[in-house]
Amino acid sequence: MTIRVGVIGAGNIGTAHALNLARVVSGSAVSVVHDADIGRATGLATEVGARVVGSAAEVFAADDVDAVLIASPDGAHAEQLLHGLGLGKPILCEKPLAVTEADARAVLDAEVASGRRLVQLGFMRRFDPGYLQLKAELTDDGIGDPLLVHHIHRNTRAPYGLVTEQLLTNMVVHEFDVNRWLLEDEYASVMVLTGKPGPHTPAGQHDPVLVVLQSVGGVLVEIEAFAQAQYGYEVVCRVTGSQGQAVMGDGSFVTRSKAFSRGVDLPELWLGRFAEAYRLQLQGWVDALRTDGPLPGASVWDGYAAAVVVGCAIGAYRTGQRVDVGLPARPALYDPAP
Amino acid sequence: MTIRVGVIGAGNIGTAHALNLARVVSGSAVSVVHDADIGRATGLATEVGARVVGSAAEVFAADDVDAVLIASPDGAHAEQLLHGLGLGKPILCEKPLAVTEADARAVLDAEVASGRRLVQLGFMRRFDPGYLQLKAELTDDGIGDPLLVHHIHRNTRAPYGLVTEQLLTNMVVHEFDVNRWLLEDEYASVMVLTGKPGPHTPAGQHDPVLVVLQSVGGVLVEIEAFAQAQYGYEVVCRVTGSQGQAVMGDGSFVTRSKAFSRGVDLPELWLGRFAEAYRLQLQGWVDALRTDGPLPGASVWDGYAAAVVVGCAIGAYRTGQRVDVGLPARPALYDPAP
Amino acid sequence: MTIRVGVIGAGNIGTAHALNLARVVSGSAVSVVHDADIGRATGLATEVGARVVGSAAEVFAADDVDAVLIASPDGAHAEQLLHGLGLGKPILCEKPLAVTEADARAVLDAEVASGRRLVQLGFMRRFDPGYLQLKAELTDDGIGDPLLVHHIHRNTRAPYGLVTEQLLTNMVVHEFDVNRWLLEDEYASVMVLTGKPGPHTPAGQHDPVLVVLQSVGGVLVEIEAFAQAQYGYEVVCRVTGSQGQAVMGDGSFVTRSKAFSRGVDLPELWLGRFAEAYRLQLQGWVDALRTDGPLPGASVWDGYAAAVVVGCAIGAYRTGQRVDVGLPARPALYDPAP
Amino acid sequence: MTIRVGVIGAGNIGTAHALNLARVVSGSAVSVVHDADIGRATGLATEVGARVVGSAAEVFAADDVDAVLIASPDGAHAEQLLHGLGLGKPILCEKPLAVTEADARAVLDAEVASGRRLVQLGFMRRFDPGYLQLKAELTDDGIGDPLLVHHIHRNTRAPYGLVTEQLLTNMVVHEFDVNRWLLEDEYASVMVLTGKPGPHTPAGQHDPVLVVLQSVGGVLVEIEAFAQAQYGYEVVCRVTGSQGQAVMGDGSFVTRSKAFSRGVDLPELWLGRFAEAYRLQLQGWVDALRTDGPLPGASVWDGYAAAVVVGCAIGAYRTGQRVDVGLPARPALYDPAP
Repeated sequence: MTIRVGVIGAGNIGTAHALNLARVVSGSAVSVVHDADIGRATGLATEVGARVVGSAAEVFAADDVDAVLIASPDGAHAEQLLHGLGLGKPILCEKPLAVTEADARAVLDAEVASGRRLVQLGFMRRFDPGYLQLKAELTDDGIGDPLLVHHIHRNTRAPYGLVTEQLLTNMVVHEFDVNRWLLEDEYASVMVLTGKPGPHTPAGQHDPVLVVLQSVGGVLVEIEAFAQAQYGYEVVCRVTGSQGQAVMGDGSFVTRSKAFSRGVDLPELWLGRFAEAYRLQLQGWVDALRTDGPLPGASVWDGYAAAVVVGCAIGAYRTGQRVDVGLPARPALYDPAP
Repeated sequence: MTIRVGVIGAGNIGTAHALNLARVVSGSAVSVVHDADIGRATGLATEVGARVVGSAAEVFAADDVDAVLIASPDGAHAEQLLHGLGLGKPILCEKPLAVTEADARAVLDAEVASGRRLVQLGFMRRFDPGYLQLKAELTDDGIGDPLLVHHIHRNTRAPYGLVTEQLLTNMVVHEFDVNRWLLEDEYASVMVLTGKPGPHTPAGQHDPVLVVLQSVGGVLVEIEAFAQAQYGYEVVCRVTGSQGQAVMGDGSFVTRSKAFSRGVDLPELWLGRFAEAYRLQLQGWVDALRTDGPLPGASVWDGYAAAVVVGCAIGAYRTGQRVDVGLPARPALYDPAP
Repeated sequence: MTIRVGVIGAGNIGTAHALNLARVVSGSAVSVVHDADIGRATGLATEVGARVVGSAAEVFAADDVDAVLIASPDGAHAEQLLHGLGLGKPILCEKPLAVTEADARAVLDAEVASGRRLVQLGFMRRFDPGYLQLKAELTDDGIGDPLLVHHIHRNTRAPYGLVTEQLLTNMVVHEFDVNRWLLEDEYASVMVLTGKPGPHTPAGQHDPVLVVLQSVGGVLVEIEAFAQAQYGYEVVCRVTGSQGQAVMGDGSFVTRSKAFSRGVDLPELWLGRFAEAYRLQLQGWVDALRTDGPLPGASVWDGYAAAVVVGCAIGAYRTGQRVDVGLPARPALYDPAP
Repeated sequence: MTIRVGVIGAGNIGTAHALNLARVVSGSAVSVVHDADIGRATGLATEVGARVVGSAAEVFAADDVDAVLIASPDGAHAEQLLHGLGLGKPILCEKPLAVTEADARAVLDAEVASGRRLVQLGFMRRFDPGYLQLKAELTDDGIGDPLLVHHIHRNTRAPYGLVTEQLLTNMVVHEFDVNRWLLEDEYASVMVLTGKPGPHTPAGQHDPVLVVLQSVGGVLVEIEAFAQAQYGYEVVCRVTGSQGQAVMGDGSFVTRSKAFSRGVDLPELWLGRFAEAYRLQLQGWVDALRTDGPLPGASVWDGYAAAVVVGCAIGAYRTGQRVDVGLPARPALYDPAP
């Protein structure tokens, strides 16, 4: 059985997903494409052997669409998710779930009301071989019980301008999610510390920022985010445990010695670093749909939790104070499988 | 269009290929399985949704087989290849092409006589992300013109006993192939040097061995092979060029500090190291079949050249002398695409 | 001219210094030793060709003592320094300058009153080849203007029991000093964050702790201190600048592959890591005394500043709040050389 | 007691030694300097507080010279050593012992006839912390019994022109010595393989070269020497043993990320890499002289053995054949201490 996917959004990430579904993932095809830019939609549809429709609603309604991939602008996610949940269509939605906590809550409530999990959220780092190896270290055979987590997250540049709150919502949100998955724990509090800005930071904004969280279980988490780091794209995560320490780097294969330097290349952009995570995320989703198995990725609950901590982080940034993170009780629908 | 593959051989490597074709590669399915061990064939066929047939010839003859994957014992490859070439079926054959140079030559002659390339040979390192990055360094923007190549190839143990000639035919043959691909050059001579044996080497055998080759273009190649290295499986390749040096390691993501040591895990076996190469090799093969494009991997000519240099290396090992490697002219069928 | 040094304190660190002065440093000898434990003093004196005296005062008074090295218990430093300053004898004093800010202030006032710098303080990391290379990166040719500093400081065990305040005064104090030297900046504020304790942390104490400082110039500094990290001794410092990032590791020479792991040894104790820094610190001090040049290491002012920030950090730890760090104006005696 | 050293030769290496003896090494001073270039001699003598004499013989004859350091041109070593041996003066002589095997033999015979060891030879790598750590791995607790040794030796450029035989006598001679020390074994045979030359290699010369040796105990040794490697100075040594593998790199402390690359600097010249080895070599020599202990470095026998293998390597290079290395029996004077 081939899963026929309808794709909403033919930008960079929608295109990457569609090409993967059409050419790389086993058991999937792209049947329908929609994008507000009709030319972009047509180009992608031609490339993957799909047809173009005029609205997101038509994607959800199409007979030849078994599941929908949402890669539309962030602001459209909540409405499209609510629409799809109403129709009972399986969805893989790019992060974020919604741009406000209220909208995220509405999506959560709708899925809970539906009584079954239909939505997987695109926090692809959960499928990254590096993070998976790191998580595998958090056992007695590895580094023991995690106590401290330190993240480095660098972008080379901020091509559309730098606004610190967006740095929290779009960039640090990946670490907000990955810690919950890595530690299997929720957040208790968050602080956002700002300091000396880099030379390309606009007046009134801050970059780098240092986010310090504490989990309910007491683990301290530091996140160094720097959106205009100049030197390249880099994601590093170090976990210190009761018996040892594990660091996730970049899986470089080749070291070059040239011109009085020996080292590895750093990418300029993130797509290459996480290409395998994107592939595995889609394959896992398609496999779950084909076998009617549990969704392997982030849930609506995870998306809601991310929205809550992002909201608290923005509050912490604005006030300079530590902010307590309060989550409601997790609906039973999201209980871990026994 | 889905390529329906018939699989001959349901051992470790045949099983890995079949699972990839059925579950991971886009555009392929496994329709038929044969193995001399009927229980093993049935188990694999059930897992991948295929049926079992009683002979290799039935695999080739089946109407629902578009292409054949040969993963039978080495000694059966040549006969099965000749059979498939006679029928004009596309084949992906595990290395080696044949166990004697004469048989390899017969396969080469048959494919040349057929007038088209039907066979891809499973030298999967050509698809490995590490080797691909290394090859990309061999330019003026990278390390310049290659002058020296040094290989490290370690196995942990030799589970079925150690015979030095098999170490050359089964283990070093990967380096014999990869140098030709990396350097786009043929061999001029080969030496095999033996020294102090490791503690687990049987009397009369040698391990480690040092193979030194020179290419027609003059590049010196050292291969350190150690089949009972105890410490783990490891493949490293260092190329020194006119402007710099590049080393391919293992793409480790996670470094662990524990018990007064900081480092990375080494695998015990090779399959994990080259899992991605196996996947990409199959995807490339299936894509070529679906689009009627050129085969992206090693050719029968490459398999024949490997057989020739293995034969010379065995001669060099037996005599302790440098042996000249003589290849006939390459048939025009194997000319690189313009 | 040979500088004849009197050594007060024949414990581990006093012994290491005395052996260096007698055997490794050019231009110095040890003439006199004092320790409250007479046997220990005698043993060391015999080894380095010195004589034993019965009190610290006798060391300062001896005719054959050109300079004094103080390696007595921390609580004795201030009194001995004040005594030596009164006599005008050059002193190299192990850190800390004093155990209270008031005592540190008294020593500072005394040296300022004397009108000349007589005391060098043993913050040996300023002489470490690793830190020196790191500092050399903080230029436009290197990583640019420093914006973020992240420290890892691990001890294997806390042999005499763990008290968190001592972790700040004895362990983190090294980072407190090294940032001032690295950044050429003072502190504006300090926070001490505690979380989930490791399994060997006594009730009521915290380990690891995360110290976050901000410099007057705005640089954010994170210090992860873990006194019972189990896995080994480790000091790492990462500086992120406006153009790049530099990480100081441990200068390991040898990587070992064995038993399915490839990596480097971690030391159990710190002395080996900083052996070269200790040697260079003493050589620099002796050279300055021989040539009547400026003292090359940390000053009394640096020791006083460390005492102030330690006091603030303890306050921050006790209250859980951010504490502003207030330093008086730096006396002109400590102005950098023009 | 201070050892007063007379220095013959005030070039780069003689100057470095003299400055170390005067300023860094404990227990030594430089009393006399001689160089054919009187200006150079005077400059160095002024710097280290010594006087200038007009000939090497005057250095040996001076009353205020306890020991002599020979850093004259290679061709003068043998005559100066014979002169010094006649006078019974302790000598530290830069490598090589002599430029011909016959002259090396004459020095050996003279020292043997004198009945005591007076000469230490400046193979400083035996004092390098990296090589010392590597040697410490060659035990059952480490990598076990050594089986294979692989060396990388790169120079950036060949400033005075490239002659392949000089590459063997001046550059590879360090590896020739270090293997004997590392393995505590002698050579049985040597081959020199040449291949494709780098772009700066003069016609008729070869660079890189690959030297393959076998020890009497059977260990295979590969040495990749490249005198015009362009990318920097680099010395790497990898030993594969019966239980594991150890690699000696460069002890880098700082890794820099900048401009899409993360790595370490490579030096342009060797002096920095081996600065600590030079210091420890001199300190060990001075300590031996002060305590009348055994000389800790390479002996005249080691220098003679190096001359023999260099001679064989040149023969192997000229003929393209494997050459057996024959050493006479080691005189009892050079028996290892019991």
